[in-house]
Amino acid sequence: MRSLIDILDLSTVELDQLLSTACDIMEHPDQYAEKCKGKKLATLFFEPSTRTRLSFEAAMLELGGSVIGFSDADCSSASKGESIADTAKVISCYADIIAMRHPQEGAPFAASLSASIPVINAGDGGHCHPTQTLADLLTIYREKGKLDHLTIGFCGDLKYGRTVHSLIAALSRYRGIRVVLISPEELRLPGYVKHEYMSNMSCVETTSLDDAIGELDILYMTRIQRERFDDIEEYERLKDSYILTADKLARAPQTMCVLHPLPRVNEISVQVDEDSRACYFKQVLNGKYMRMALILKLLSEADGKKEPVATDLEGFVCENPRCITATEQEARQLFRCVNQEKQIYRCVYCEAQIKR
Amino acid sequence: MRSLIDILDLSTVELDQLLSTACDIMEHPDQYAEKCKGKKLATLFFEPSTRTRLSFEAAMLELGGSVIGFSDADCSSASKGESIADTAKVISCYADIIAMRHPQEGAPFAASLSASIPVINAGDGGHCHPTQTLADLLTIYREKGKLDHLTIGFCGDLKYGRTVHSLIAALSRYRGIRVVLISPEELRLPGYVKHEYMSNMSCVETTSLDDAIGELDILYMTRIQRERFDDIEEYERLKDSYILTADKLARAPQTMCVLHPLPRVNEISVQVDEDSRACYFKQVLNGKYMRMALILKLLSEADGKKEPVATDLEGFVCENPRCITATEQEARQLFRCVNQEKQIYRCVYCEAQIKR
Amino acid sequence: MRSLIDILDLSTVELDQLLSTACDIMEHPDQYAEKCKGKKLATLFFEPSTRTRLSFEAAMLELGGSVIGFSDADCSSASKGESIADTAKVISCYADIIAMRHPQEGAPFAASLSASIPVINAGDGGHCHPTQTLADLLTIYREKGKLDHLTIGFCGDLKYGRTVHSLIAALSRYRGIRVVLISPEELRLPGYVKHEYMSNMSCVETTSLDDAIGELDILYMTRIQRERFDDIEEYERLKDSYILTADKLARAPQTMCVLHPLPRVNEISVQVDEDSRACYFKQVLNGKYMRMALILKLLSEADGKKEPVATDLEGFVCENPRCITATEQEARQLFRCVNQEKQIYRCVYCEAQIKR
Repeated sequence: MRSLIDILDLSTVELDQLLSTACDIMEHPDQYAEKCKGKKLATLFFEPSTRTRLSFEAAMLELGGSVIGFSDADCSSASKGESIADTAKVISCYADIIAMRHPQEGAPFAASLSASIPVINAGDGGHCHPTQTLADLLTIYREKGKLDHLTIGFCGDLKYGRTVHSLIAALSRYRGIRVVLISPEELRLPGYVKHEYMSNMSCVETTSLDDAIGELDILYMTRIQRERFDDIEEYERLKDSYILTADKLARAPQTMCVLHPLPRVNEISVQVDEDSRACYFKQVLNGKYMRMALILKLLSEADGKKEPVATDLEGFVCENPRCITATEQEARQLFRCVNQEKQIYRCVYCEAQIKR
Repeated sequence: MRSLIDILDLSTVELDQLLSTACDIMEHPDQYAEKCKGKKLATLFFEPSTRTRLSFEAAMLELGGSVIGFSDADCSSASKGESIADTAKVISCYADIIAMRHPQEGAPFAASLSASIPVINAGDGGHCHPTQTLADLLTIYREKGKLDHLTIGFCGDLKYGRTVHSLIAALSRYRGIRVVLISPEELRLPGYVKHEYMSNMSCVETTSLDDAIGELDILYMTRIQRERFDDIEEYERLKDSYILTADKLARAPQTMCVLHPLPRVNEISVQVDEDSRACYFKQVLNGKYMRMALILKLLSEADGKKEPVATDLEGFVCENPRCITATEQEARQLFRCVNQEKQIYRCVYCEAQIKR
Repeated sequence: MRSLIDILDLSTVELDQLLSTACDIMEHPDQYAEKCKGKKLATLFFEPSTRTRLSFEAAMLELGGSVIGFSDADCSSASKGESIADTAKVISCYADIIAMRHPQEGAPFAASLSASIPVINAGDGGHCHPTQTLADLLTIYREKGKLDHLTIGFCGDLKYGRTVHSLIAALSRYRGIRVVLISPEELRLPGYVKHEYMSNMSCVETTSLDDAIGELDILYMTRIQRERFDDIEEYERLKDSYILTADKLARAPQTMCVLHPLPRVNEISVQVDEDSRACYFKQVLNGKYMRMALILKLLSEADGKKEPVATDLEGFVCENPRCITATEQEARQLFRCVNQEKQIYRCVYCEAQIKR
């Protein structure tokens, strides 16, 4: 059994295969229209996310499969106190593959441990959202023809933006990536992301979108949320400088691509939509095709075995209060060694580092 | 691209074609069972309306298509501040046609401006609900064999009942229509409906259902809601006289048809259901068939271009607080001239008249 | 028209046929994959119940049919005051069969009176939940090869557990059933269940799971809810003794089967899941197959007539405040004589006994 919890669960070869399959589906949709006939996708959305849910549902329907599920926790048995593990076992009786969204970190991983069908992480709190990253990668690949030797600007909230962290992690496997981090001081990229994923990238930090935009191949925009700021005046002073307008875009290269994970509120002006550099709606379409490729891949591998490389550490528990192990009934505490030399361990559910 | 926002978007010829297609579907459902194979309807219901939503879904399924969507705003990205225009663009990546219900007037029109697929208005606040009117028209046509030379009584809340306004607008194109307006003083038909649509109809107003019922070909019932009255005593005094009971029905012609947009609460007694003149459940079935005909028509025309006849009026904005332009990010203010001589303009979204 | 409101609506012969069909589907799923092509199931869930809803939806999809519906009352027209009878008539225009969950007792029966399609009760308040009982029966049948001559322990909340009452009712038709009732004093099986269904069973009552477990063929676990206890200390003192742990299970026969209607919270330890005697996830799968068998049966009989054996009792009304007749517009009060000699009558909706 293969599941997709984190974008790094996929090898570079597998990623290339997914990109290739997605492109093939785009060109020959009819050849895929019956591939999942008789198969069922369960969309288990413990918090609402229309775009992601409908993308998965459209993907499954375009493969000839069908869909069951729920769109928020009120409609689920979770409100009766059922564990994620039990939900996963039950749904394994009804469907062939699961796409799960959950506010707690590690919940899709917990589900994958007891499900007898593949589980796709459709977003677990602030942790991972790998299928968004697949959409991002396909968009870059189709627009630029490659995933290496690119200068990529990330703009806005780089501290909490999990899509940014995931895309950086994915790009860490490619050569010649130059990253320009554009954010206010308060919302800078966390140090651990740099340490873990950016050792072979060159990196520049700036607070000015205007200064950086002229040298970018890709501009990845994210939203700056008021509630992230302690000081409202600081927010008011800053916010406009991270809004992409037609004026700001005038200074960018003609071949630059603008990406955004959506939904946007006002961080990209509607005027920009008409510009040929605006790729965020293409990104939506690409996301659907990557989800189709992923569903096909995981269903084709559904008969294999899963062996999470993990270990009990006697007496240690994950202390992240947002981790699914904080609430899940009798969940096994499991850790993965990420640095043998320094003996650094992380929770396999939420990846929080434990203190030994 | 063709969308259906207002019943008057359809010409009389198109309306006749829809009626004819619907009748053909009723007689030969098998011939339509695969017509929409591989097509997807998105039901975007920003407020709940089970009957309408399930009617659309049943319609699409009976055409061999499939359905994605949401049934209330909590489950949508709107709660994250996304504009209707963006939602429409995103959904255009996932589906082939949209049915949209929204509490704000003009929201489906706003969606149709940016969607690349047809949009059907499934009710926008107090503004329009054209597919209900299609159900009404098919019911009259099937029961009476014609849409002209009929005496039609509208009973109940004629002030706020948008289904009444829409049906009167649709009937304005047929000859020999005689309208009997039956309502309490507080809930009389608004003057503008009379001025715009009833110039070639004869019209009588009365407060007594008992007096009017003897001369009707069609009785269109609506619900009188307590909250519409300033004076509760007035409501209590009046309400029973607008309830259709078996006793009141005894005075009606044997060939009269009773219509109601449903849901009813108590404005038609359950006893009346058994009477052969009760057509409101047939109306439900007819609504499904008209929606099937409409989906087929719009999908077949989906490759064409849309050109809304509209104009900017420098410096003017729509002042209707329930209009979608009041909240939609960077929405263009657009107006349509409805009377060249008097220079009367209306907002193209919600049809509110602007003051120049 | 046949509906399934109460498990006893099915004769023993019909029950045997359903078990046999379910087993056949399990062995030859491909032969059933198109049986319901073009048919629609409406899942009308006036309160959430994910497991049951998804089980029905999976069942219909595996038969090649499709699904429409809603998953809680907020999304339904009920919030606009529509009666169950009207909802049933409207849905009869859209679907071929209904599965209804409702918090009020008798609501599915009220629906079946006006629907022109079969209605399956998917749980009506504390009253009935016959498809859970079908899942229970198939599980016992498959694990034990028979439904007679068995010793069955019911453990936990036997007072409010409607699944316990239904299974006892169903088993009342088989020979040689021995029942062991294991519960705290506060939650003992109600006297009327014993009087009506257990006359030909032998029965023992105990408060100790430990004492009883050694002699059981089947152990049917249920959850003990804190809110059932007047005295919280009493609850705290008792609760652990009704939790099935690996330790307690060690005293049970090797061939015993553990059943549970799910969701569980903590009344069965997760350790027990690995034991071969744990059958509660098999039960989930069995439930899907029994629902498939039931849908097939009811659709095949959908052309017949229904004649509820019921009578008006002039001047009598059902006094159960949770009965659907307490709120349904103009609902007919109907009663069924259950004991001719003593002139005992029960409401046909909720089965409450009336006082004459």
